[in-house]
Amino acid sequence: MPATDLKPWLKSTQEQVDAALRSFLPRENAAPKTIHKAMRYSIFAGGKRLRPVLCLAAAEACGGDVSEALAPACAVEVMHTYSLVHDDLPCMDDDDLRRGRPTSHKVFGEGMAVLTGDALLTEAFAILARTPATKRYSVGDYVREFAETGGSRKLIGGQVLDLEGEGKQLNKAQLIRIHEAKTAALLTCSVRLGAMTANSTPRKLEALTEFGYNLGLAFQVIDDILDVTQTTEMLGKTAGKDEAVDKSTYPAILGLDKSRKEAARLTRKALKSLEVFGKKGSRLEQIARYLLEREY
Amino acid sequence: MPATDLKPWLKSTQEQVDAALRSFLPRENAAPKTIHKAMRYSIFAGGKRLRPVLCLAAAEACGGDVSEALAPACAVEVMHTYSLVHDDLPCMDDDDLRRGRPTSHKVFGEGMAVLTGDALLTEAFAILARTPATKRYSVGDYVREFAETGGSRKLIGGQVLDLEGEGKQLNKAQLIRIHEAKTAALLTCSVRLGAMTANSTPRKLEALTEFGYNLGLAFQVIDDILDVTQTTEMLGKTAGKDEAVDKSTYPAILGLDKSRKEAARLTRKALKSLEVFGKKGSRLEQIARYLLEREY
Repeated sequence: MPATDLKPWLKSTQEQVDAALRSFLPRENAAPKTIHKAMRYSIFAGGKRLRPVLCLAAAEACGGDVSEALAPACAVEVMHTYSLVHDDLPCMDDDDLRRGRPTSHKVFGEGMAVLTGDALLTEAFAILARTPATKRYSVGDYVREFAETGGSRKLIGGQVLDLEGEGKQLNKAQLIRIHEAKTAALLTCSVRLGAMTANSTPRKLEALTEFGYNLGLAFQVIDDILDVTQTTEMLGKTAGKDEAVDKSTYPAILGLDKSRKEAARLTRKALKSLEVFGKKGSRLEQIARYLLEREY
Repeated sequence: MPATDLKPWLKSTQEQVDAALRSFLPRENAAPKTIHKAMRYSIFAGGKRLRPVLCLAAAEACGGDVSEALAPACAVEVMHTYSLVHDDLPCMDDDDLRRGRPTSHKVFGEGMAVLTGDALLTEAFAILARTPATKRYSVGDYVREFAETGGSRKLIGGQVLDLEGEGKQLNKAQLIRIHEAKTAALLTCSVRLGAMTANSTPRKLEALTEFGYNLGLAFQVIDDILDVTQTTEMLGKTAGKDEAVDKSTYPAILGLDKSRKEAARLTRKALKSLEVFGKKGSRLEQIARYLLEREY
């Protein structure tokens, strides 16, 4: 499958995900209107849908039907969005811009932004619970996997470490620990849930766990680099923020050149774990290469 | 079953719930420590465990094994606690005291309190997913019920209406709408989940839905009354808060006397729906009477 095929596939998959999100989320005019408007404001702010795309590609790699994986694909995106809404709050990272638009609390006020995040998190589980069970995996398995990923030892734990690390000089190991928790965990969960809807064998699930982990770390290194090298306009969020708040990042610890090499090394490692899928893994491979080749 | 039996049963049930909560929640010394400490701080602040108690009593009323209902009993308490932590935030109700102790953000800071609420909400789903399925109800059913109750049209929707109604003169219908969403929904969910673990018939589930709804409204009317008539010390939270922030409450709209009558009327209505359970419903009946007879 030549790499030129990726972009149209990405576009149509993102559209499919957006349509599913529109149908899964409560309508904008459902009462109380403010919260439903605020939920949709953050969800439809033009994200790349990276996590859903990975989830669906993983289902495909395991020989599954992509339509069975739409619910978990949306669930991971909704969980990701809730975490952004809360991370942007004044009492957390205090960000005014996200995906090129004012952040939720800037538009709806702080109290409403807290509730919007809460509602998205709750809705993520509601959406996930629509996923059909397979021979090997039950809805309980999906929910346990998802809750563990979103919980105090992974996604939220990473934000805690991030919050506590601000203004401190972290070493590489501490930084990796944050990236594992904040980024790699949800990327891993995305591919795993996709695979589970395709009734994946334990061996393939293990391979995707490796893939998600390394891809997640690579992704975060690249994000750190982009924060330094790109403008606010290009990023859609405040550029140079990490340095301004004296945040430990890959470029700050290793320098730009070594950070780029680290991203490439992690991506190669991720690609290696796809070997077990043969030709069926080519979509995941394309996505991983595409992420590495983002302009940075 | 004479009413004198209730207190020792309540005490031992509360202890059973606390023991289960201790085993379900991540350990206090798990990394990152701050969040796990903060989660336990709010969970073990001496709540009455009303929702778990109702969940277990409902399982009993449907002839079920109480131990099968411990996971949902804890899940509803953890969801309740998350909602308190977030409602107390400066950008929401801005409360300094809860259950007689400083609120989460007073002790751990605002950012950590947001994350603590998030972690509790996520953990609530993790705990719920441990509930054994029955012949009629799957883990997916539990999760859908729970997510709907906690979501933007019920629990969170109620807080939205509450936030938007502050300083405005609400009428009785608007007030009921808030109480339905903020209080009655989670009480109803508590008894329903308990019943589902006992493989309840649809008819009994319907009766418990009526029971939970009316008991929830009665409970909230009584809470409004207590806010006026009790001291901060007796309440364990700031007394007179509703009047101070010009909040619409039952006593403010109907006066104390009519509010008391309304609470009694709703409790009678709740008790009526227990008839279908015969003697097996006596524990639920005792709890309902006990709540009505709180000093107010």
